[in-house]
Amino acid sequence: MGSLRLGLAQLNVTVGDLEGNLRAIVDCNKRARAEEVDLLVFPELTLTGYPPEDLLLQPHFVQANLDHLKKLIPQTKGITVVVGFVDRDHDLYNAAAVLSEGKWVGTYRKAMLPNYGVFDECRYFKPGREFPIFTDGTVRLGVTICEDIWHPIGPVQIEALQGQADLIVNLSASPFHTGRGAEREAMPSTRARDYEVILAFCNLVGGQDELVFDGLSGIWNASGKLVARARSFEEDLLIAEVDVSQAVRRRLQEPRWRFAHLSEPLSKVPTPEMLLPRSLLKTKKSPAPKPRTEPIPPTLEAAYRALVKGTHDYVRKNRFKQVVLGLSGGIDSALVACIAVDALGTKDVIGVFMSSQFSSQASHEDAQKLAEALNIRLLELPIDGIFNSSLQTLAVAFNKKATDKTEENLQARIRGTLLMALSNKFGWLVLVTGNKSEFGVGYATLYGDMAGGLAVLKDVPKTLVYELARWRNAKDPVIPARVFKKHPTAELRHCQRDEDDLPAPYRMLDPILKAYIEEDCSVEEIVERGFPKEIVQRVASLVNLSEYKRRQAPIGIKISPRAFGKDRRFPITLHLTAETDEP
Amino acid sequence: MGSLRLGLAQLNVTVGDLEGNLRAIVDCNKRARAEEVDLLVFPELTLTGYPPEDLLLQPHFVQANLDHLKKLIPQTKGITVVVGFVDRDHDLYNAAAVLSEGKWVGTYRKAMLPNYGVFDECRYFKPGREFPIFTDGTVRLGVTICEDIWHPIGPVQIEALQGQADLIVNLSASPFHTGRGAEREAMPSTRARDYEVILAFCNLVGGQDELVFDGLSGIWNASGKLVARARSFEEDLLIAEVDVSQAVRRRLQEPRWRFAHLSEPLSKVPTPEMLLPRSLLKTKKSPAPKPRTEPIPPTLEAAYRALVKGTHDYVRKNRFKQVVLGLSGGIDSALVACIAVDALGTKDVIGVFMSSQFSSQASHEDAQKLAEALNIRLLELPIDGIFNSSLQTLAVAFNKKATDKTEENLQARIRGTLLMALSNKFGWLVLVTGNKSEFGVGYATLYGDMAGGLAVLKDVPKTLVYELARWRNAKDPVIPARVFKKHPTAELRHCQRDEDDLPAPYRMLDPILKAYIEEDCSVEEIVERGFPKEIVQRVASLVNLSEYKRRQAPIGIKISPRAFGKDRRFPITLHLTAETDEP
Repeated sequence: MGSLRLGLAQLNVTVGDLEGNLRAIVDCNKRARAEEVDLLVFPELTLTGYPPEDLLLQPHFVQANLDHLKKLIPQTKGITVVVGFVDRDHDLYNAAAVLSEGKWVGTYRKAMLPNYGVFDECRYFKPGREFPIFTDGTVRLGVTICEDIWHPIGPVQIEALQGQADLIVNLSASPFHTGRGAEREAMPSTRARDYEVILAFCNLVGGQDELVFDGLSGIWNASGKLVARARSFEEDLLIAEVDVSQAVRRRLQEPRWRFAHLSEPLSKVPTPEMLLPRSLLKTKKSPAPKPRTEPIPPTLEAAYRALVKGTHDYVRKNRFKQVVLGLSGGIDSALVACIAVDALGTKDVIGVFMSSQFSSQASHEDAQKLAEALNIRLLELPIDGIFNSSLQTLAVAFNKKATDKTEENLQARIRGTLLMALSNKFGWLVLVTGNKSEFGVGYATLYGDMAGGLAVLKDVPKTLVYELARWRNAKDPVIPARVFKKHPTAELRHCQRDEDDLPAPYRMLDPILKAYIEEDCSVEEIVERGFPKEIVQRVASLVNLSEYKRRQAPIGIKISPRAFGKDRRFPITLHLTAETDEP
Repeated sequence: MGSLRLGLAQLNVTVGDLEGNLRAIVDCNKRARAEEVDLLVFPELTLTGYPPEDLLLQPHFVQANLDHLKKLIPQTKGITVVVGFVDRDHDLYNAAAVLSEGKWVGTYRKAMLPNYGVFDECRYFKPGREFPIFTDGTVRLGVTICEDIWHPIGPVQIEALQGQADLIVNLSASPFHTGRGAEREAMPSTRARDYEVILAFCNLVGGQDELVFDGLSGIWNASGKLVARARSFEEDLLIAEVDVSQAVRRRLQEPRWRFAHLSEPLSKVPTPEMLLPRSLLKTKKSPAPKPRTEPIPPTLEAAYRALVKGTHDYVRKNRFKQVVLGLSGGIDSALVACIAVDALGTKDVIGVFMSSQFSSQASHEDAQKLAEALNIRLLELPIDGIFNSSLQTLAVAFNKKATDKTEENLQARIRGTLLMALSNKFGWLVLVTGNKSEFGVGYATLYGDMAGGLAVLKDVPKTLVYELARWRNAKDPVIPARVFKKHPTAELRHCQRDEDDLPAPYRMLDPILKAYIEEDCSVEEIVERGFPKEIVQRVASLVNLSEYKRRQAPIGIKISPRAFGKDRRFPITLHLTAETDEP
């Protein structure tokens, strides 16, 4: 028996770009053939990109995806390829085509459709109900797609027990959030060991709007041991030789039926056999590649790299050359500047310091120092002239009403307008610097500091902003030390401090927000964790009352289990009198 | 045999407001008992409001909904009530409780969950799998919820054939769009006749963010004939006496099995019988109410009233006292002013004319005339001072680059900032006046004319804006005739005309947009309808390129089969080189 040389093509594709994505698939396929790969696996919906959203409702787009898939078939001489596409009969299916020796051998249709969190797959797809086993006469191959593999009783069980698969591949588009990498290690390992199958997980990589796919594709042997792991946050072609003979021999001696008696309907599920025109165990001329195990980045590094990747791909895939952001001298804009520079390079990031009568000398200096340390261009645009002429224009209407938040928001909006003017004039994308704590309680001005194309820190709470900035500074201290020490302030009036405007200091605010937003806790449950009732009620109120702002916020990069955006869908019109302290 | 007095409680509830909604239910129940109603039906998810969205992920909210439902039980002496709530075991269900004589008799769980368009029900609910029949020993009652009734093979069939129901009630939250009223007439009539059952459809009414529920609840007899119809766009308690005896007698003579042989698995569906503690056919002291059949409003009137209702409910449910909008002297702002006045009254609408060097005398006069005719307050805030000081501030950065769209967007953003300043100072909600054609191709300035809380015309194409304005003017000519005649212009530069900036005049643009956005046509298919290829490609490109603007747009009121917002979910990052003329 020869050995099976497995390739995982961890690609960074773009939604809708059938031509470009096919080109990337064909390129990768060429490289894999040159390396004598037997079985090459691509990520979920490789051809269309993920998630294609309502593009799927356009019949011509689905047809074009099928037409492009057909162009790939003749490219599969000497190899077996599993590639993600949208299948169609009367309905649509999230599917994987198995192509080999210039033939379309068969199709697997995803059975478990996620429709929670950021996922809307039931909006588009019907679930598959067949579990074909692809075999060359010796090895038995099962195919699954993303969610399919996350259920202990599901397609893996069916293919391993009913279908007697030796090797199960999984095409994924599994987005990053903090801690996800480790979950994605434990699960396939358990699944492989439980069902005594080799498991190969090929994940997408790259940013798509709110989502960042982090790669980390991997292969586990039938004992659940990791054989090889691909890179994180970067494209990769992971090639590893797996010993299928052990799994095959074990099956021949004792079929995998260990738990079959527990699941009565199992035997009713169709697992038709499809014959591959090519052995999966060809003898190779080239030596077996040394298995590569790239590291899973630790928590802070992973979050930072997700933000860098998300920023890079949003900017570049949307064909912007440069970005601009307001540098206030504070920690948020300092961190965004670092992320932008790490994503795009120093030449493509422009900072703008927009001073007012309320700006401190320290802020000015710190913005300058940061720009110097990062080696980025810094523009200075004072806003007092526009502010004064705005107040003059509004004076008749305001009719001597006392100064209040209006004048603060006005300053923020003047700044937003200036950044957008630079964006219009030079084609720069505006990066928004607000953080998750601010977006949570609405401590941000709509059309002001919320104006821009991408809110880099939208899913990063203020306390994590500090941690990430410290982590980045440890590598290279570009952010002035004073920025870490001073009290956060919007500098929209004299002696303003965030903590005076907010219901609680950030170290208390952030865990309350996490409990309310990410854990769906009630006010009562949060109070039981030791927070003052009045503060928790006020925070909950602010979250609900500021939904209208978030609905108009720019998209941000998801790094937590629940981000604002597609991940959390809340009504604006909402009365929750019992729960919060709303009027 | 007595007759069955049926009540349909067409309520306007608010999402999340369990206390307030319960109060409305109890009030209505009292009125119905006083009128000797036997069976009182409420809309879908009456208690929580519809759609509750991710509130449903909060276990304490679901618990509170159950607690509030229990408070209703003792109020059901002398009546049988069917009310919508969220049921829970391990999973959640969109459910209806049948309460009678102080007892919770049983629960129906919605079987067909819509997960398309604006609907996300698979995100929250599991489908019901039982179809209980509630009977007093004589009459057999089936319960269904909204989508359930739209499928010929589905719950109605099961309850009518397998369950031998005489009367099927449907609790709905069916949002308005143009033409929906007529569809909702034809379908229940057909369904009633096909299955020989009496059908009672109780719809929600009122605005909830993007959606307007238009009421028009109705009752059809077992021949498919309309017995009574409730009001459109307003709360109503529709009471009508229905002759159930005919349906009952017919069933006793010949059970409803006409099509049963066609659906093999039908007999396997559980239709348990639940005994009602009270007859549905009590003898009444009061005379039978005269059946009321309120009219379905014709197309333009329906669209206009949907916009009025949506505006009213968004403003009032979000507890705003007054609204403000920019009056440009053009047709869009004129129509929005009319809608706002019809929704809120003249005292609660403030117009602002914000002149610039590019404003024409005609625009100024027309804005003034409109404000006078509508009897609303008009503020005048010239923007030239702020515009000039902005240009001065930006001069250093712009470095003598030629004037372009930047200076046009700047004016729009200054206007947006002024309106938001008034909003902040006086608590006025800003109404946005842009239309669907502009939102479609991105002919609008983000944070400029797109700034505000509600985009009233977001789902109204420009050509329909004219029709609606003409319709409104026919009742009372408040919009100056000149506004209809002049060429649409943003007045952001000298001699500007929309039609020079746009790929095509509105009469050509609107059908192209409808085909591309609402009908999912390809560029090719639209060209086949007789439009020039270059123009269609350009329109398609603009639609895709402006997705980032729409993502940050305020919500609007859905009146078409596909509105921007929850109804259409498109990626921002998207390459469609083959389809459009993108770079």
